[in-house]
Order: sequence, then structure tokens, then C-alpha cells
Amino acid sequence: MKEIRIGIIGTGVMGADHAAILADGVANARLVAVQDFDRGRAENVAVSLGVRAAADADALISDPDVDAVMVCSPDGTHAALALRAIAAGKPVLVEKPLAASSEDAEAIIRAEVAAGKRLVQVGFMRRFDAGYVEMKQALASGELGRPLFLHCVHRNAVGPDYLTSELVIANSAGHEFDIARYLLDEEITSAVVASPPATRNAPNRQPQFILLQTASGVVVDIEVFTDAQYGYDVRAELVCEDGTVALDPSPATTLRAKGHDGFRTPADWRPRFRQAYRAQLEAWTAGILTQTPSGSSAWDGYMAMLVTKACLQAWKTGNRVAVELTAKPSLYQ
Amino acid sequence: MKEIRIGIIGTGVMGADHAAILADGVANARLVAVQDFDRGRAENVAVSLGVRAAADADALISDPDVDAVMVCSPDGTHAALALRAIAAGKPVLVEKPLAASSEDAEAIIRAEVAAGKRLVQVGFMRRFDAGYVEMKQALASGELGRPLFLHCVHRNAVGPDYLTSELVIANSAGHEFDIARYLLDEEITSAVVASPPATRNAPNRQPQFILLQTASGVVVDIEVFTDAQYGYDVRAELVCEDGTVALDPSPATTLRAKGHDGFRTPADWRPRFRQAYRAQLEAWTAGILTQTPSGSSAWDGYMAMLVTKACLQAWKTGNRVAVELTAKPSLYQ
Amino acid sequence: MKEIRIGIIGTGVMGADHAAILADGVANARLVAVQDFDRGRAENVAVSLGVRAAADADALISDPDVDAVMVCSPDGTHAALALRAIAAGKPVLVEKPLAASSEDAEAIIRAEVAAGKRLVQVGFMRRFDAGYVEMKQALASGELGRPLFLHCVHRNAVGPDYLTSELVIANSAGHEFDIARYLLDEEITSAVVASPPATRNAPNRQPQFILLQTASGVVVDIEVFTDAQYGYDVRAELVCEDGTVALDPSPATTLRAKGHDGFRTPADWRPRFRQAYRAQLEAWTAGILTQTPSGSSAWDGYMAMLVTKACLQAWKTGNRVAVELTAKPSLYQ
Amino acid sequence: MKEIRIGIIGTGVMGADHAAILADGVANARLVAVQDFDRGRAENVAVSLGVRAAADADALISDPDVDAVMVCSPDGTHAALALRAIAAGKPVLVEKPLAASSEDAEAIIRAEVAAGKRLVQVGFMRRFDAGYVEMKQALASGELGRPLFLHCVHRNAVGPDYLTSELVIANSAGHEFDIARYLLDEEITSAVVASPPATRNAPNRQPQFILLQTASGVVVDIEVFTDAQYGYDVRAELVCEDGTVALDPSPATTLRAKGHDGFRTPADWRPRFRQAYRAQLEAWTAGILTQTPSGSSAWDGYMAMLVTKACLQAWKTGNRVAVELTAKPSLYQ
Repeated sequence: MKEIRIGIIGTGVMGADHAAILADGVANARLVAVQDFDRGRAENVAVSLGVRAAADADALISDPDVDAVMVCSPDGTHAALALRAIAAGKPVLVEKPLAASSEDAEAIIRAEVAAGKRLVQVGFMRRFDAGYVEMKQALASGELGRPLFLHCVHRNAVGPDYLTSELVIANSAGHEFDIARYLLDEEITSAVVASPPATRNAPNRQPQFILLQTASGVVVDIEVFTDAQYGYDVRAELVCEDGTVALDPSPATTLRAKGHDGFRTPADWRPRFRQAYRAQLEAWTAGILTQTPSGSSAWDGYMAMLVTKACLQAWKTGNRVAVELTAKPSLYQ
Repeated sequence: MKEIRIGIIGTGVMGADHAAILADGVANARLVAVQDFDRGRAENVAVSLGVRAAADADALISDPDVDAVMVCSPDGTHAALALRAIAAGKPVLVEKPLAASSEDAEAIIRAEVAAGKRLVQVGFMRRFDAGYVEMKQALASGELGRPLFLHCVHRNAVGPDYLTSELVIANSAGHEFDIARYLLDEEITSAVVASPPATRNAPNRQPQFILLQTASGVVVDIEVFTDAQYGYDVRAELVCEDGTVALDPSPATTLRAKGHDGFRTPADWRPRFRQAYRAQLEAWTAGILTQTPSGSSAWDGYMAMLVTKACLQAWKTGNRVAVELTAKPSLYQ
Repeated sequence: MKEIRIGIIGTGVMGADHAAILADGVANARLVAVQDFDRGRAENVAVSLGVRAAADADALISDPDVDAVMVCSPDGTHAALALRAIAAGKPVLVEKPLAASSEDAEAIIRAEVAAGKRLVQVGFMRRFDAGYVEMKQALASGELGRPLFLHCVHRNAVGPDYLTSELVIANSAGHEFDIARYLLDEEITSAVVASPPATRNAPNRQPQFILLQTASGVVVDIEVFTDAQYGYDVRAELVCEDGTVALDPSPATTLRAKGHDGFRTPADWRPRFRQAYRAQLEAWTAGILTQTPSGSSAWDGYMAMLVTKACLQAWKTGNRVAVELTAKPSLYQ
Repeated sequence: MKEIRIGIIGTGVMGADHAAILADGVANARLVAVQDFDRGRAENVAVSLGVRAAADADALISDPDVDAVMVCSPDGTHAALALRAIAAGKPVLVEKPLAASSEDAEAIIRAEVAAGKRLVQVGFMRRFDAGYVEMKQALASGELGRPLFLHCVHRNAVGPDYLTSELVIANSAGHEFDIARYLLDEEITSAVVASPPATRNAPNRQPQFILLQTASGVVVDIEVFTDAQYGYDVRAELVCEDGTVALDPSPATTLRAKGHDGFRTPADWRPRFRQAYRAQLEAWTAGILTQTPSGSSAWDGYMAMLVTKACLQAWKTGNRVAVELTAKPSLYQ
């Protein structure tokens, strides 16, 4: 089997993490080049991993020795870089969100449809997490009947300084929107938002509670709490007619020490989904080799943005807001 | 210490259960009389437990050898019986709901205020459950900071035939309304309701999802699913600024057998709260002896009905509905 | 139903705890008198609970207003006091161990057999713990088949200063010997002991590992670790032909805070078995009233001592040692 | 980085599993050839995976296009094949046990020492399981203090027909011996064995209980129960001076259905350690490329056999038996 040579644009936290996973060894994938707005940062990564540092994003995308591109640069640059990768005919894995506005996302959809093939994947890596995969399989097995409720919890230990009440919805909840669509296999059609008071630990932003409903009526509720202090914690329970399936947050070992029985909840969110990030890379490169894309498409990235837009309006108005859905191009059927 | 002699009106499921707990032995309490609309049913209980069967409810309430009354008869009779007990000056434990309408509940409030002393307790036994008590203590300790979210799940294995979508809200969710008010120690001010589709197991009613907010902004969400098939299940997680505390649904033992590791989830809801029912009886009788009532007051029962009313309107209209609160009489401060 | 009037000899930790449970209210039981070697200590308890302080143990046992006696005084006094209670024809609940030597235990057996009725119960309260009762029921149901292994763990946070390696076996392991016999309903026939090194936290004594086998070959293993630091912890898993049943150590709530998800493990051992102590008192007094003794008999207390004896010899010699069993009098069949 | 070309000898359950993992993609490793005593079986695997089928084991070992060899053939052939790989100067991963007798294992040690470099790894894949790795890290961190007890449970759902009481010790317990040595980093010095009765599900063999002690006195106990019916289950708790760390057997999701809350325990043992098998392959090939072997050495395989030998003698005699340790060659320091 041929090997996919990968170039990474953006070597901040996410880009460096992807680079480290590739350096650890991913079957059929090899990191060959990195690029960053901060040239020195890119060169440090390049030297430590023995790969090239490209002069700029265009050089990396057009490099004939780069088969596929990962976009891990700031959110505002995602759309433009995705469009250039499409223009170059190269597969591109864009970190979420797909774009900074739904208009930009629509431009990507149009470009990809015009190109006539799926080149864009959005980095919603939870679709490759063992827990969510098991939930999906449990649902697909039919033993639980039809879904009714999906309860989601997203907690960070400490949110970044720049985070606002609006960004708690616009940024932190995106993974939940995508995983809900993935698990339920249908579109989200309405949103209501309720906000508890800000906490003493983060007085400038409020946690959020998002209540969604899907086309068939499934109720999806999401707690987004970016300053939960005790650690990073992602939970989900899918409640069906004949039973429920839930993520089990416990790690591989339990500790009894210092008056506690249980497990540690680290603040760092990366270990929780490290296996998923790696599996996403494996599936992405395998999909390129076999021309059978998996993972979140540009359409999925766009839909997450439309749900975000409805949630923001629901938050501002206090009312239930309908998601403005549009027709799905045949490329994404 | 003196002993409280108790008479039970209504010997259906709940009344018979209370009678059995009393017969097992509750300190300072003794069952002396029972009464039921179905005279034969009352006499069977009376004979098996060695107590009197009263001719009718009035006879039981006015019996000088009955110190306190439990009302376990059909919901429609609660208010009238509570009023008669108040008139007789006898402490009365009324099974939930306090009354069949908020107007009836108001009449009880007026009568009790006129009597000038608290005689009515509503049978919201969860306030005596070890788990909820621990949650309340964790909050009171201050180590978790202020509350932000309260996630509640109420599931029955199989709902009764008469249950409608409306009754799922009006009847099944009542315990959650009271326990939320008990834990958070403030009033619920608004409600939104979303309903997933009916299930193949109960095609005539929909499960319900209730989103409440309290005066200070705490978000309370409640899944009410009366046909969850796998068993009776009550869960709650209280999310605070610095940590969370959740009910642990596991029983005293874990089983590994027949391809499963975990525990059984019986359909019968009574074992789950048996300890709470007993503790409620102990606290009720101790409170009578020491004239320091604990447990849910008539006011608490009335507030649960006002929340119910708002939820029903929210369900019918699809909108967020404000709870119509009224001033609390000083008797209940 | 008549009420049992109880006198407690010894108002140290255990005696004071029993007195407090009785004062909280136990159906059909009432504390009327206490006595202690330390007269002041007894009087303090007497005054705070409103009961009499007896001049000495004999006065308490012979008091016509005391129906039944609890012996909670130092281990060395248990046998003599039990004999006096038998002589007075009064039911007596003796804290474990039944006696300070197997010879003393045999004297109690002889006296009780001569009296022709069971008057002695040993305070092995675990037989009344909900978890062990569920284990026993699971076994009795037949669904798990025959037992094969019983894994037991007994951990204290910090052992008392006077504790030696020998006492870790002789004192701390006694509850395990009784509960193994209770669950398996047969005698223990052999013992092997292995001792890991002493810990830095308790350099003067070694933890112990005890390997027992029953008449039918069931393997019982017991870790006894009195200085486990993190808290009091009692665990057990009964492994049978078709499945296993294990104690679930989790309390009624789970906590997520300060980097941990799980539950607290308090050093104080009393809350863990508070329900069992209370249930033991209820069963004991109910058994007196109905003349159907339950709980551990003098024979059970004696058997626990014979197992202890074999363990101590196994520990000293490093070899497998047979338990010296004797014929069971018909009184205990 | 260069790629290691791998040949597999033996395409039964284990060999086919390894081949499948390699085919799924392992960084720096590529399966190129397979061989089996049953030529057809080898050819089926070869065809389905697009690799060569070697004529015989010698041909595979001497094939210049095979860089490293995996021995997955019947136990009796392990030693001879390992010796041939050493003679050919090729790294060899031998499935456990290393050899059929301790004498054969000694011959491998001698050959490897004579070759002057470590070529042999034994397939004790648990050393690469996330849970055991976390246990080892917890111990290494020092926060738990020194180890005292290691409680191990090894359960299969249904043992193979050929399994005898002797093989329950000689075959099934091997992984536990190795992981105990790995976690505790010292030799096992004595063994005692106790056997509960055979079960109705496997009347021809007895479960086993093995009590080991290490050079420093740590007590290791192992339940080996090959017919536990409910599923494959491997558990371990390491008890230290200041706390304990235990494997958490729960999978990525929890299921609530059909009267149960918990998780499924499949009979198939392969999914439980699939990640470990894969990590073992990655570490093995990475170790070959960087000439820094990890995993179990031939010495580790030999030590496991010496412990097995002592356990068998302990089982036959009923006594505590010392492990006959020998001096460790400097190659394995």
C-alpha cells in the first residue's frame, strides 16, 4: 500500500499534537512538511521531527511531495486554506470549525461540489472515539429501538481568557452538534438556550445549556461548562425505546488513595481523545488511499455552523429558534 | 417518649406499603387503624396487621385513639381529607400531589394559616433519601460553590395504562419539582417543555423533557420517561462552580453473570426508596412529638403544583412560560 | 408488641455507639441502663440519654427492669459477663470476640447447652449488612451455582498503637471468619498465612494474608491491612460456578471535584456499618420477643476463635494448619 | 525510518490475529510471509492478506526478505524455532510459553547469551496494556509507597476441552506470573496452591488459587478460573503502603437494558487485549529498528516457567514450595 505524505499548516497546540501522533507512527502516513505563521515555531517542529518547514501555506499546499494537507491554523484562515487545497486537488483535513461564517462554509461546499469529489474532512475526531463508536453500533444493532433523548455534557477545567458567553456556544459546543448528528443520523431543526449565572472562577462568561430537537423529534440537551475546575469531562447518554447506552468516563485504572476511591480527572483534554485523533488520521489516510472518505464532510462542518447560528439567536432572544436548513447536494448523500 | 398512633386512609399500593413499614417497626410510631373506600381491602389489611378498620374517613380522623393521619387515597380526595384533618387539629401526611388543583391547594394553605400551626406534610419522601441528603450536605458544606445545573432523570419500566403525555408531566415529574426546590432552596420561575416521539412500547403517550430555571438562574433539566423498559431509575447530578455531586444508582452488590457485569434494575420502584419512606415516617412522627415539623410543607406541595401548571402550559404552547408565584405566608418561612 | 428494656455494659466506642443508635429509636427496644468500669464515663452517657447508670455489671445484669444485656466491655471480660447473663437467664449480645480464649468460649457453650436455650448472640453485625445479605440471597437463589472462591479485603485507615502482627490476625480478621462461615454455611478446615513487610506508616506490625479452605473445598482468601491510609474499606467477592456477586463499596453519591471523580473513603469505620448495627439491634430484640434467635450464636463465636487459633499457628510455623473442629451440640443445629 | 518485514510461523488463532493486526496497519511493520504446519491454512491467510506462504519454518526464517519472525505455532515447537531464529541472527517474538520445559528455556538463554545480543521477546502482551502500564507508572511515581499485595483474577468464560487442573496452572496462569514480575520488578520466590472443587460446567478440572511471595515479601494471589461462564475477565489490584491502584474492567460504554445496568462481558478474550497486542507489535518493531529491546525477554519467559514449576509442585504436595532461582546473565541486567 502506498504511503500518504502529509503537510501540516499551523503548528500551535493542535497542529503540534497531530505532528507528534504522526511521528509516533501512523500506518500509511508520513509527515513531510510543516508551516506556521510564526516561522520559528514551524522550524522548531520541523527540526525536532526531521521534516521540512515550508515558506508559506501556498508553498506547502502546492509542494508536489505533499499528498494531503492538514489545516490547524487559526479559525479565520480555515476557509481560505480549504479552498486552496480544493483548487490544488488535494485532500484536506480542516480542524473545526470548517469556517468562520456560514457564508464561508457555503463557498467551500460550492467549490467541492464544483470539483466533483470529496476532498474536505472536518476534524470532528469524536466520530473515531471508541465510546461514541460503540454508541453508534448499539443504536445500529436495533436492540435499543429508536432514539428519544441524547444527554450531553462538555466540561473543561479552565476556559481560556478570551472565552465569552457567546464563544461557549460558538466554539465549545461544536463537537456536540456534530456527534449528535452523527449518532442520530438526521438534522437538528430547533434550538433553545438557557444560561445559569457566571461562576466566581470565570465571572466574565456564563455556562450554557442548549436544548435541541431533531427532524424526527429526538431531544438533545447539552451542558457546556468551560470552567468546571475538577477536570476535562465529556459525557453522553443516548436514551432509546428499549434501553440506554452511555459513555463510561473511567480510565484504565482506578485509584484508592488520600481519602478517595475513583480516578483522576486531568485538566488536559488531549489524553481523553488521543486514541480518537490517531484513529482519525488512520481513517483519513486509508480513505485517501482507497478513495472512500469517512469522517465529517464539509457538509457536516457546514451543518454544525448552522446549528451554532440558531443557538446564538436562541441565546440572544430567549426563544426557540428554527435551524435554517438547505438542500443537501448529491455529493454528500 | 410518647408514641404516635397512626391511622391510614387508603390501603392501595402506597397505603399498604406504609402500613407494612409501620408493622415492621418504626420507633415512636404505631399503626392503629386503616380505612379504604373498598371496605374489604381495608379489612384485609386490618386483620393481617392486627389493627382496626374504620368505617369511613371521618370516623378515622375523629377517632380519639388516632393521633395522626396518613392520606393515601386517590388524588382527587387529598384536599378534602387534608382539610378535615386540619379541622380536627391532627397532623396529616398527604401523599403527593397535595391536591387535584392549585385552587384546592390554596384552600389548604388558607386553612393551615388560619389554624396557625403546621399540620400538613406532603409525602415527597425523596427529601429523606440518603443520596439526596448527601447532595444537600455537599452543597451546604460550601466546598462545591454555588449551584449551576441540576440534571434529573426519572424513568419507570412500564407506565400504567391511564398515563397520558399530560400526566407524564402532571404526575410523574412532581417529585423532581420538589427535590429541585429542596436542593436549591429557591423557587422555580420558568419552564420549557420538549417532547420526543412516543415509543412502540407506549404509543399513546410521549416521554417529556422539562427545562426549568430558578430565581437565581440555576438550570434544572428533567427527563421523564415512564416506559424505559429496563427498570426504575432515578438519577440526578448537581453541577456547581467547583465540582459536582451525583446520585450513585448502584445497589449494595454487583453481579457478574450471563454475559453482564453490573447490577439489576428492577421494575418495581418501591425498593429504591424504601429507606426514604421509612425515614420519612420516623421524621414525621419525631417532628410531631417535638413539634418541629420537617419534610415538605403544604407550601411545598402547592409550589410543586404551580410548577406543574407552568409546565403544562409550556407543553401546550411550545413556549417558555413563567411560573405564577405568590407571596409565602409567614407560617412557612 | 412488648418492648425490650436493654442494659449496656461498657460505654467505650462500641457501647456508646449502640447506646446512640438505641436513643435514635429502634422499634421494640429501649435503653434503660448503662454501666462502665469508668463510672464517670457511664454517668455521662446515662445523663445525656436519660437512663440509669448501674453501680456495677452484676447490678445491671440482675436489675429486674433490664430484660436483655449488651456486653461492650474489654475483650477479657466478655466470657465472665456472658456466663453471668446466662446464669440470670437473660439474653445477651456480646461484642466480638466471644471470649479471650477458646477454653473460655467452650465454657460459654457448655453453660448455654446446660441452660437448654440460646441466650447468647455475638455482635458479628455484618450478617445484617445489606450487601452481605444480598450476597447470601444471590447464593441461595441458585442462579450462581455452587461457591468456589470468596475474596475478602479488610482495610482500616490507621490501626491503633497497640496492634501487633498477631492481633492483625486475632482481632481484625474475626469478622471475615464469621461472614465466610455465614455465607458459605460450612466450617473452615485449614489455614495458611503469608505476611508482606511492615509499612513505613506502621513499622511495628505486618499486614496479613490468610488463605482458608472450607470442608467442601471453597477457597477463602483475606487481606487484612490495618494501615491502608486512604480509608476504611471492606470488600468481598463470592465467585461461583455460574457467576460472581461482590460488595459494591460506593456510597449514595459520587463526587467530582479537585481533580477526582469517585467517592470519599472516610477513616471512621462506623458509618459503613451503621445500618447493620441498627438492623442487628432490631433483629436481636425481635428475636427475643418471638423467641427465634437470629444472628451469630455462641457456637459461631467459638468457631471464629478456632479459626483464629489455626491462623496464628499457621503464621508462626509458615505451614498449612488444620482447624481443630469439635462436634456441634444439638442446641446449635 | 526503515520498515521491518515480518514472517509469521503458525497461523492458528494467535498467528491469524497477529496477521490481522499487521494487515490493519502497524507503523514500521509489514507482514510479508506466513507458514503453518497445515499448508492450506497458511495459504488461505497468505492469499487473503496478499503475502507469501513459506514452504516450511526454515524457509521462512532463512528468507532474506524476512527481517523478523513471530512464532505462533504449538507450544512444543517454540524452543526449537526460537533457537533457529537466534542462529539466523533474526529477532523473534515467541508466543508464550517460551518453551515446553525449563531445560529448553535454558537452552534458549544459553544460545542468546552466546550470540551476545537480545533477539528473543516473549509475547507477554499485558506489559503493553494501558491498565497495567498505568499501574506500573502509579507505582513508579512513588505516591503509593512500597507494594504489599497484588491481587490477580484470571477468568475465561469456557476453557478448551483439553484443559486439565495441571494446565490451569501451567498454561493459564503464565500471564499473571510475568505481569507480577513486571509490576513488582523482582523475583517470585515461593508458591502455595489451593484448589476449589471442579464445577458442573467443567467437571474434569479444578479452578486454582495460587499464593506467591516475592523476594521482598510482597504477597501475590491469583485466582485462575477457566470456566467462569459469564465472560473473559482479567482483574488486578496492587495494594501499597499509601493507596491502591486497580484495573478498571469497564469498556468505553455502559448499557442499561433488559433489567441490567452495566456492561457486557464477552467470552472472546481477544478484544480485551487487542490494543496491547498492537502496542506490543509496535514496540517490538520500534525496538528492532532502534536496537533497544523492550517487552519480556527470554529471561522473563524462563522465570515464568520456573514459577510454573514451583506452583505445580506446590499443587501436588500441598506445601509451600520455593522457586529454584538461578543467577541472571549480564545480558539481561
